Amino acid sequence: MKWSQTHIYTLKEAPSDAEIPSHKLLIRAGLVKKLAPGMYTYGSLALRSIRKFENIIRDELNKRGGVEILMPMVHPRELWEETNRWEEMGAGLLKFQNRNNHWFCLGATHEEAIVDYIRNDVKSYKDLPRNLYQIQTKYRDEIRPRFGLMRGREFSMKDAYSFDVDQAGALKTYQQMYEAYQAIFNRLGVEYRIVQADAGNIGGSQTHEFQLLADAGEDSLLVSDTTDFAANIEVCPAIDLQTDNSNEALKPIEKFATPGLKTISDLSKATGVPENQLVKTLFFSSNDQTNSKDKGLKPVAILLRGSDELNPVKLKNILGLVNAPQMLSDEEIKQVTSASPGSCGPLGLQIPIYMDTGVEGLKNYIVGANEDDCHIKNVNHERDYKITKVADLRMAKAGDKDPLSSGKLKAYRGIEVGHVFYLGKKYSEKMKATFLDHQGKAQNFEMGCYGIGVTRTVQACIEQNHDQDGIIWPKAIAPFQVHICLLDPQDEKAQNIVHEIETQLEASGYDVFIDDRNERPGVKFKDADLLGMPVRIVVGKKGLDQNEIEVVERRTKTVHKVSPDSASAVVKKLLI
Amino acid sequence: MKWSQTHIYTLKEAPSDAEIPSHKLLIRAGLVKKLAPGMYTYGSLALRSIRKFENIIRDELNKRGGVEILMPMVHPRELWEETNRWEEMGAGLLKFQNRNNHWFCLGATHEEAIVDYIRNDVKSYKDLPRNLYQIQTKYRDEIRPRFGLMRGREFSMKDAYSFDVDQAGALKTYQQMYEAYQAIFNRLGVEYRIVQADAGNIGGSQTHEFQLLADAGEDSLLVSDTTDFAANIEVCPAIDLQTDNSNEALKPIEKFATPGLKTISDLSKATGVPENQLVKTLFFSSNDQTNSKDKGLKPVAILLRGSDELNPVKLKNILGLVNAPQMLSDEEIKQVTSASPGSCGPLGLQIPIYMDTGVEGLKNYIVGANEDDCHIKNVNHERDYKITKVADLRMAKAGDKDPLSSGKLKAYRGIEVGHVFYLGKKYSEKMKATFLDHQGKAQNFEMGCYGIGVTRTVQACIEQNHDQDGIIWPKAIAPFQVHICLLDPQDEKAQNIVHEIETQLEASGYDVFIDDRNERPGVKFKDADLLGMPVRIVVGKKGLDQNEIEVVERRTKTVHKVSPDSASAVVKKLLI
Repeated sequence: MKWSQTHIYTLKEAPSDAEIPSHKLLIRAGLVKKLAPGMYTYGSLALRSIRKFENIIRDELNKRGGVEILMPMVHPRELWEETNRWEEMGAGLLKFQNRNNHWFCLGATHEEAIVDYIRNDVKSYKDLPRNLYQIQTKYRDEIRPRFGLMRGREFSMKDAYSFDVDQAGALKTYQQMYEAYQAIFNRLGVEYRIVQADAGNIGGSQTHEFQLLADAGEDSLLVSDTTDFAANIEVCPAIDLQTDNSNEALKPIEKFATPGLKTISDLSKATGVPENQLVKTLFFSSNDQTNSKDKGLKPVAILLRGSDELNPVKLKNILGLVNAPQMLSDEEIKQVTSASPGSCGPLGLQIPIYMDTGVEGLKNYIVGANEDDCHIKNVNHERDYKITKVADLRMAKAGDKDPLSSGKLKAYRGIEVGHVFYLGKKYSEKMKATFLDHQGKAQNFEMGCYGIGVTRTVQACIEQNHDQDGIIWPKAIAPFQVHICLLDPQDEKAQNIVHEIETQLEASGYDVFIDDRNERPGVKFKDADLLGMPVRIVVGKKGLDQNEIEVVERRTKTVHKVSPDSASAVVKKLLI
Repeated sequence: MKWSQTHIYTLKEAPSDAEIPSHKLLIRAGLVKKLAPGMYTYGSLALRSIRKFENIIRDELNKRGGVEILMPMVHPRELWEETNRWEEMGAGLLKFQNRNNHWFCLGATHEEAIVDYIRNDVKSYKDLPRNLYQIQTKYRDEIRPRFGLMRGREFSMKDAYSFDVDQAGALKTYQQMYEAYQAIFNRLGVEYRIVQADAGNIGGSQTHEFQLLADAGEDSLLVSDTTDFAANIEVCPAIDLQTDNSNEALKPIEKFATPGLKTISDLSKATGVPENQLVKTLFFSSNDQTNSKDKGLKPVAILLRGSDELNPVKLKNILGLVNAPQMLSDEEIKQVTSASPGSCGPLGLQIPIYMDTGVEGLKNYIVGANEDDCHIKNVNHERDYKITKVADLRMAKAGDKDPLSSGKLKAYRGIEVGHVFYLGKKYSEKMKATFLDHQGKAQNFEMGCYGIGVTRTVQACIEQNHDQDGIIWPKAIAPFQVHICLLDPQDEKAQNIVHEIETQLEASGYDVFIDDRNERPGVKFKDADLLGMPVRIVVGKKGLDQNEIEVVERRTKTVHKVSPDSASAVVKKLLI
């Protein structure tokens, strides 16, 4: 493919809304172009990468019995009402009325659609297991799209859904898909971690995320330095050195004035008590926002050490909610405690109190007095107030203990590119999807669902693989594996040699891109670095006079000076 | 691919909403399944056909310099307002507000999006011509979706857009695309006609439709029996034997009572005057419904011979409207003429009067008197009323004269599967998209656009190619070229032979589908006929005992009894 015959425009500068390197590079290399926030046109180079990645996915899924289908992107409301997700999904599910005033949504995920697809066809256990997938454009109404394709509104996803006769079968399929995902990301040659994760509003009791490591990743991961343990911080158990002063004798409580001390840091400085020995009280509403009947304020109090941070996903799960609970407003807190946020504590509250395990070992601690500008010291749970439940509610952090060994956790940033869920019967029960088992008895399907963010993965590869000059494409999804800079496009000898190399490489199955523009060598080199194909070949009149062309490895910039005859062989070796 | 490893369910009966054979067969063969009206899930077999067709399209477009990209399906309102099509497209363009209250639509076509894509990149004539295409899911809010994928809401389309420096270049590109489309439909091996057509609200002055011939087609085509002339009836010039009584002397007008005579047929019977010598008057409003400021009723009268039918597309074009004009209601007609529809005529009207050419040669004819239950005879235009314009406003019909020769037109039904448009500067001017020409002067791009209904074509192929037993797939897009009925799936010898044939055929690049289900032969044969792969191989124990297997051609049902060893060779010959 010649540059002059395609439609690629590179830019020197990235637009101001591009915050992270991969977003900047996507735009600068002309891979994508924004039509509206979160909606991008994929140029020909990006599309080549996307297609290559799609084909890797297809290959690994088909090998394992996956059957590709394609479901509609527009779904009728009635379908989503069967599972109550018409409400549960919240504002991210884009809903609209058509000209006949029927309600529809843009499918953000396809559990409902797939169950509808199979529910009247698969009648017997003999037809199971079944594993169907699609690669499709999805739409989620992100309130603030950013990072290019990483958190866009319109994006491409591979979503697969499995149906099994029982839990054992479903977990076996889960394991197969887990292995398929390993195979897929291994073929990309990228660095990733598989971590425990939260199921969100998809539901399901077992789930893993596939996270590409990158500094700009939106997810925090904690990975053991000793065992296989790895988790998204959202669900990572927090095990650290407990502050344990349980030998101390209980002292009598004592109220003291703390005028102007609003924060834990203020209080720690004023009292000389370290933050991890202070106890802070937070307030949330445990009502179910996805259930329009559950309207009233249902306040709960959360106790944490002053040095800890609340983990909203752990709180959501403890409270049995579908979405993360809302913090109370200052005014609502005042209603509940008679005090402003900085001066609240557990004593005398008439609402459920959840205590993080980090507080459990503390004695004689300081809490807010529920009276503005006052705190109380020598407070002790059980003696001074009752706890509804003690639970792991805080964020784990680097240095915490690996739950599986005496090792420690290390922190990484990741981009979630894949997610496998064991769903059980959540959807098949709600949608009354059954098959007849060996005994002729109707049973609900055991399901799993499995997603890969196709366009997000392509960008994540760039986020992980670039340098100051541009993209460094993984070989498996580089738009072209070889980029030839034809420095003298008018020179017949150079033309012929380039054509010869192109023919040889294409015959061996490699994709070759030729920069045949009338541009200076410097411009061509800069663009080749920016576009980032794994191997660059430089063919110029000057070199040819000495029977020499250059083969350059993009990642290391290592230059191999070779004869035109041996170029293809050298390139093939580099691309193994 | 083994049936047992895929997800295909055939049905004996078609659903009641399937009106035409191809729709019934799509459902019965399990190719698609309805999620909601006009929205279908494509099963694995359908998807294979679709992908094969897509690849034929890609191949022919890439050969001619087409560059594949992919644009978003969701577009911001502002973009469509630049061309006024936010209003012009009417209710078929699905519009919605996102959670931030911004308006968007589901892209039904992508002229605006593509102009936005290129307008700041292509700066110079040196970059032209350019021809970009995509294969994408589109959504049109059909008020009454029907015929399966043929008039669905969600469907897949290939849309291409070309950019040239001048009209000559644009027309050359148009010709190239015309030839690409010929190549594409020739490769399908289907019967089609290329016809002149109306540009609709896409705009453009030159346009051809590619129509697959099929009795259930929604389009009427008229094709010369002598020359290359072929046209969609919407734009076909109507040239027939004129009723010419112009030698007659003009007689004085005479009102007569016609109580209860409401229709042309009534009037003809009562007066003894043949229908083609009566003149009927129709009323339309010429206001522009796409312009919200053009609100009032703007009535016009249309005169036609009683035997002729109005062509709304011709009327739309004469009136210079974007969409077809609305007929006046009975009440509005009464306002304009003081009479009910059956008794109206041109005399005394204060509105523009358009006369069809068929009326031009008539003298002393009968029209309504604009007084209920009265008509007037011996009416003559020019003497008795003035005509605003004489024009070809009627439907042409089979037997009319070929405009290019003395030949006659024959009627066909067609399914529009492709459409090429020369657009000129309509979009580039409205969207201020320019490049610098040789003289460094800013010029608007000369554009063309070119569509192929991907999913519609797949169904149209079935509509044209089926029999009472099922589908007869064109070889080029059959999901599999070969369908092996393995009659005794437990028999090891049969298994081995099937495996051998599969391996040989796949090695030669053929797709093989094996019915390995535990079903009776009769069921397998019926399903093989229904699914309609071009060649069927029957392998059973009984035949093998005589070293014999059957190779059956789906279209003709010709049976070849061959030895297992020669089966592959025979199949390959049939598939050439």
